[in-house]
Amino acid sequence: MIGEIIAIGDELTSGRVLNTTSCFAAGQLFTAGHEIFAMATIPDTPAEIGAALNRAIKRSDFLIVTGGLGATSDDLTNEAVGNALGRPIEFRQDVFEKISARLPKIDGQETRHLEKLAWLPAGAEMLNENARMAGYLLIHEQKPIFFLPGVPHEMKELLAERVIPRLALWKKGGDAKHVRQKVYKVFGLGETEINHRLDSLENDDDRIRIGYYPVFPEVHISLSIIEESAAETESIFLQHDDEILKLLGDSLFGTDEETMESLVGKILMEQGKTLATAESCTGGLVSHKITCVPGSSEYFAGGVVAYSNDLKERFLDVAPILLEEHGAVSSQVARAMAAGIRARTGADFGVSVTGIAGPTGGTKEKPVGTVFIGLSTPDETIDIPCRFPGDRWQVQELTAVKSLDLVRRFLLGIKLETT
Amino acid sequence: MIGEIIAIGDELTSGRVLNTTSCFAAGQLFTAGHEIFAMATIPDTPAEIGAALNRAIKRSDFLIVTGGLGATSDDLTNEAVGNALGRPIEFRQDVFEKISARLPKIDGQETRHLEKLAWLPAGAEMLNENARMAGYLLIHEQKPIFFLPGVPHEMKELLAERVIPRLALWKKGGDAKHVRQKVYKVFGLGETEINHRLDSLENDDDRIRIGYYPVFPEVHISLSIIEESAAETESIFLQHDDEILKLLGDSLFGTDEETMESLVGKILMEQGKTLATAESCTGGLVSHKITCVPGSSEYFAGGVVAYSNDLKERFLDVAPILLEEHGAVSSQVARAMAAGIRARTGADFGVSVTGIAGPTGGTKEKPVGTVFIGLSTPDETIDIPCRFPGDRWQVQELTAVKSLDLVRRFLLGIKLETT
Repeated sequence: MIGEIIAIGDELTSGRVLNTTSCFAAGQLFTAGHEIFAMATIPDTPAEIGAALNRAIKRSDFLIVTGGLGATSDDLTNEAVGNALGRPIEFRQDVFEKISARLPKIDGQETRHLEKLAWLPAGAEMLNENARMAGYLLIHEQKPIFFLPGVPHEMKELLAERVIPRLALWKKGGDAKHVRQKVYKVFGLGETEINHRLDSLENDDDRIRIGYYPVFPEVHISLSIIEESAAETESIFLQHDDEILKLLGDSLFGTDEETMESLVGKILMEQGKTLATAESCTGGLVSHKITCVPGSSEYFAGGVVAYSNDLKERFLDVAPILLEEHGAVSSQVARAMAAGIRARTGADFGVSVTGIAGPTGGTKEKPVGTVFIGLSTPDETIDIPCRFPGDRWQVQELTAVKSLDLVRRFLLGIKLETT
Repeated sequence: MIGEIIAIGDELTSGRVLNTTSCFAAGQLFTAGHEIFAMATIPDTPAEIGAALNRAIKRSDFLIVTGGLGATSDDLTNEAVGNALGRPIEFRQDVFEKISARLPKIDGQETRHLEKLAWLPAGAEMLNENARMAGYLLIHEQKPIFFLPGVPHEMKELLAERVIPRLALWKKGGDAKHVRQKVYKVFGLGETEINHRLDSLENDDDRIRIGYYPVFPEVHISLSIIEESAAETESIFLQHDDEILKLLGDSLFGTDEETMESLVGKILMEQGKTLATAESCTGGLVSHKITCVPGSSEYFAGGVVAYSNDLKERFLDVAPILLEEHGAVSSQVARAMAAGIRARTGADFGVSVTGIAGPTGGTKEKPVGTVFIGLSTPDETIDIPCRFPGDRWQVQELTAVKSLDLVRRFLLGIKLETT
């Protein structure tokens, strides 16, 4: 089915809040086999909400509308919907009772605010039957319009658990196209180089579509196939999947939902090994990435953020002579930090980072972006000198992902370019 | 002026990449006094690009179009623009020469890819005169259309340095409305409670507009005033700014560009104090936030990520008896961690975090979301027991911001609710 996503909110059109919900919705709907015709972001202005609704309902099979369902005075969606679609706004006693029933649990909100949540356009069917959150379905001109809250985690829950299944039922009897999509994630190769490697695939077969998406500091490549039959889709997919894996080689670190940190975690688990971190210029970003993954306590021993020379000595046993002779940002200190954290924590591997993230601190010999990444293993301690472009945030991100990629490459036995 | 933002890219409509550039552009344009009529996100489909352009040019004073200007095969904007606006696509020798001139510096890209960048719609004026990046201006039906690259940092640079100044010139002689906006950032109060406090302000004066934006785990409140004269705008602003500051009280931690971590850093600098961190369940998120701020090495001594009991003993001198008797997630251990990192680093303050971020590890007495935050100062060591809702990510975010807020409140002498 062809759908359209409309996000409502002054906070979005004034640029103050990033519209993450439309992006999430588009991804989920696309994966579920729907096509997104357009995504619109509009202000909390009733006339504009109405115009957008009427424009979209004509050209799409279904609509997802997010935002403006709350209890505060700038939430105007229900009123605008009522006017635009010619439906009276009714006070829903059943909805209000459900909301009131959980009232004592909601941190002393006043009733007059909550009443607003129960004024809904005629025909609205609550998506969460207990009214635990705002969000309803309207069938208008035989097309489903889903109104969802703008709060990202509520919207995501309703979309995944209510909207997608409802659309799947709806779709039966409609055009049953089969979609197959796979995302390939690459670190260390530029978009142009990747495009060059995969170019011929797309030129040789117009049944596939390849997209290139820089997601700093990675590049993601998507392979998409939409055909009438499931068997046809699958056979085209298998044929190209294999070839893409080969063409991307060991710069491909993961696919689909995998992240660099989840992948490193998976390999550590499989090999029964543990990792510890010693960070200077990344300030905890490496350990933060590692510990975003549920279950990371199984393989992550811990880490130290040692900005100063003093802490590098005290927590990581870096010899003062190394700091004096080579400076904190050096191969020697990166190695000593990696070896130090490994020894101190008893982990199988220690990874370390020392560098100049900027904007200040650069010198002629060691400009901003100069970074050394160390890795200590039971057999050896190595390091990789890097010079990264960009601002503080970019240097920190590049350094963190590169350090995890170093661990990945080592664990998988891929040849390393070390000092 | 009233503008419209069109973002082009399959990666956006398939939800694979978050559209950060439209959000950034909307924010910058709004701050510069323009109104955003709508933001559209559309796929890399020439017909759809053309339709969106023609629709937008009719109803807006200017357009910002981002994406699809690159050298890869899925970049189709220029072709689509040429067709939609009836302008031939021309090979621009001048542009190509500038691009080629920097060729050796760009990591071995092939010429045939770069040639594509020099095929532009007739009348295109490069925004960066050295063609260091894609992006051009077309004046169509007397309206400026800015085509910008989708790469966020390039787009941001061109928008700030080329587009906004050009629009300011354009605007002279047009309707010169004056905009004043301020954002108030709150942590620890719900949206409904804040709305309740500020309700009367908006009801009493229809020249102001107040918006409420949950930006997890914070709530941001915006005050916007748009009037004909600068003096009028400023006087209305001053009158309400003062009142809002009073109504939000000490839950207001910052305004406009300030973040919790930049604010804590500013206060530490002003007071000439240093801070160190000891983290368990946040895994480095607290130190990562602190070190995102340029110059944080001035006041951040360093930190330890101690997941295991063993590391809590070894790096933070937590007494084994405390871990045995109270468990790692307890007031006692939070305090010992804070005191330990303070003593070990010699920092003025030590802040610690121990808790259960989930999804596993919860018990009946200490369910997922149970967190203790410790703070050690030269005079005392205290802790705050918390129970946070949400998933792993939410618990980690809430914990990190709460721990920084604890430091802020202590430094500012605000009364604390401790154990």
